[in-house]
Amino acid sequence: MRKVAVVGAGMTPFAEHFALGIKDLLPMAFAECAASVDKGLDKNDIQAAWFGELSTTDGFPSGILADTLGLPDIPVTRVENACATGNDAVRNALFGIASGAFDIALVVGADKVRESASKDTFWEWAGMTRDMAWDYPLGLVAPANFALHVTRYLHESPATKEHMAMVAVKNHHHAVSNPKAQLRFDITVEQALDAPTVVAPFGLYDCTPQSDGAAALLLVSEDVVDRYTDRPVWVRGVGLGLDRVMHQHKRDMTTFPATVKAAKQALGMAGLTPSDVDVAEVHDCFTGVELISYEDLGFAERFGAYKLVEAGVTSVGGALPVNPSGGLKAKGHPPGATGVAQCVELFEQLRGEAANQVDGAHVGLAHNIGGPTAVSAVTVLEGPGA
Amino acid sequence: MRKVAVVGAGMTPFAEHFALGIKDLLPMAFAECAASVDKGLDKNDIQAAWFGELSTTDGFPSGILADTLGLPDIPVTRVENACATGNDAVRNALFGIASGAFDIALVVGADKVRESASKDTFWEWAGMTRDMAWDYPLGLVAPANFALHVTRYLHESPATKEHMAMVAVKNHHHAVSNPKAQLRFDITVEQALDAPTVVAPFGLYDCTPQSDGAAALLLVSEDVVDRYTDRPVWVRGVGLGLDRVMHQHKRDMTTFPATVKAAKQALGMAGLTPSDVDVAEVHDCFTGVELISYEDLGFAERFGAYKLVEAGVTSVGGALPVNPSGGLKAKGHPPGATGVAQCVELFEQLRGEAANQVDGAHVGLAHNIGGPTAVSAVTVLEGPGA
Repeated sequence: MRKVAVVGAGMTPFAEHFALGIKDLLPMAFAECAASVDKGLDKNDIQAAWFGELSTTDGFPSGILADTLGLPDIPVTRVENACATGNDAVRNALFGIASGAFDIALVVGADKVRESASKDTFWEWAGMTRDMAWDYPLGLVAPANFALHVTRYLHESPATKEHMAMVAVKNHHHAVSNPKAQLRFDITVEQALDAPTVVAPFGLYDCTPQSDGAAALLLVSEDVVDRYTDRPVWVRGVGLGLDRVMHQHKRDMTTFPATVKAAKQALGMAGLTPSDVDVAEVHDCFTGVELISYEDLGFAERFGAYKLVEAGVTSVGGALPVNPSGGLKAKGHPPGATGVAQCVELFEQLRGEAANQVDGAHVGLAHNIGGPTAVSAVTVLEGPGA
Repeated sequence: MRKVAVVGAGMTPFAEHFALGIKDLLPMAFAECAASVDKGLDKNDIQAAWFGELSTTDGFPSGILADTLGLPDIPVTRVENACATGNDAVRNALFGIASGAFDIALVVGADKVRESASKDTFWEWAGMTRDMAWDYPLGLVAPANFALHVTRYLHESPATKEHMAMVAVKNHHHAVSNPKAQLRFDITVEQALDAPTVVAPFGLYDCTPQSDGAAALLLVSEDVVDRYTDRPVWVRGVGLGLDRVMHQHKRDMTTFPATVKAAKQALGMAGLTPSDVDVAEVHDCFTGVELISYEDLGFAERFGAYKLVEAGVTSVGGALPVNPSGGLKAKGHPPGATGVAQCVELFEQLRGEAANQVDGAHVGLAHNIGGPTAVSAVTVLEGPGA
């Protein structure tokens, strides 16, 4: 398979952008991506695009992307895979380039969650990602859905709500130095534990905020990479895994098989193991999900995730920093943008240019788990250094 | 690029399936597809899937596909590109296989339009594919949108409403022999011209019905094709083109630049010209759109489409039969399924097994134009014969 590199990356701040629509956010992310290309980008060189958006918040997504970026002559495919949308857009763009069909492709992810311009709100749409016959009538939208998993996880593993609070404290602290993050303030374990309950076992600080934003990556084939940079970040592996949709069909609530499958594919394609990963952006829509994901990604032994946060392993400065950007928890989570933005963070980390730099980061992993905990996407990136 | 073949194809009848949901329709299409594989299909050999669905009518699409087909261990990407969704799903699956990532992939398209199980209806969703600031408030949903184009086309070209009626008569007649078609009855030019107006210049018989349905294709690499059939249908070319979303930005209402771009890509990739095409499935959501598309696809000279219907060129028995299945007009149009179902028809045509067989068909072309006339996808297939 032809090698594919990331040579540009940019994103909007993640925030409640009440005054901006998707048509404003897309050009902002693209402009920053284009400006980050070391040797410059002639926009007319872009041959194709993949666009990750969940909620169709302002008209026909592919067309909106082409129109607002001034790219009417290239094919644009919209990919939707719940919260794994962004990293699945990266995956499909990689196939397009690796196939030989294109040398230069754009990947964009975006969502407008707060006061959408559309007549249907994001949350009406989000409800529809649940099974209509069983899960939706039971109220199993995302917070309740993940709460079932984490409640069982806390019961079966030694992890406690204090460990969840430690994840929140870590990711809030990471976000303080990230100018793109939505919640740039430190919190304490006590604050997290004392916060109002959203849905047990999650308090306010266990939950991602509602965010608007966009992120963009420029992917190119190995054949043309020298035209754009001498410091490419290689896409070493991509993976996408699914699990049964309905909760009565899940065999074990304390693990996400979708993540296990996606990570196995991506790391297998890269020829790497979890221990090769230097920095990771992990799906922490709820703090307990970050803990479960340590185990599913192979960073911790079964029910051993709590040890990593206790020891500070996953803080910047530790052996395997997780969510140096602040993560979904504190950077924010516009679902279609999230996976792409994780890769933006890793692009900067692996080139030594991140706001919250992890020393010596060479291999990075981005991870999403979404839908009714039924889909996961993982991307493995490798920096230019030796 | 690695060659990719279609080795299996199946679909549900297109109809108002009031008693069936998307979860019923998907296994029906897949079962027929699997049964059509000459040397048999072990379901466990399928390595990945692409799913085209517009309207998220019953929960999380990728997960619903995996669940209902009993394929929980493969990656599934949902692709959405308005009415070009089905052929864009084929295109992305081709890239996945051509890249070397997979040898065996499933492409499924489906939509449930009539009395959807979801709390939002298909038509509420369809409204959202229009620009929210300009087109949607003006009422520019699909029929009004296409009516603007065809009104101008009738003004500038010699084509008349009689020629539109002749397209309707042709496609209704083709559908009579297709057991999967929704409207299996002949009509006359007079009936079409006398029918109630839906939106000028379209009468009832100028418009596609509302349909439910699903369609499936099995795509494999050249490296494993012999395992499945000695009569593969090769995917020779794929193309996807866009145009500006809003009507005030379209330079010429009498042509669809998206189609021109998609056809150029697909035929260019195939190394073929329009004159090489023996049979085509063309997007006739409204009869006038079939006429315009003859010109955009290179089957007729500018403003010369009417000559083809007058001479019977595009009827079965003519030199270039178009929509032998009955087309969207009479076979029906569940949007996510439509492009995939066009390829199902061509698969059967190119193997000499179609219900309404075109003699000696060797090269087939499938075409969609959709969204706010802002996206088109074209697939070029070639049969096993010499």
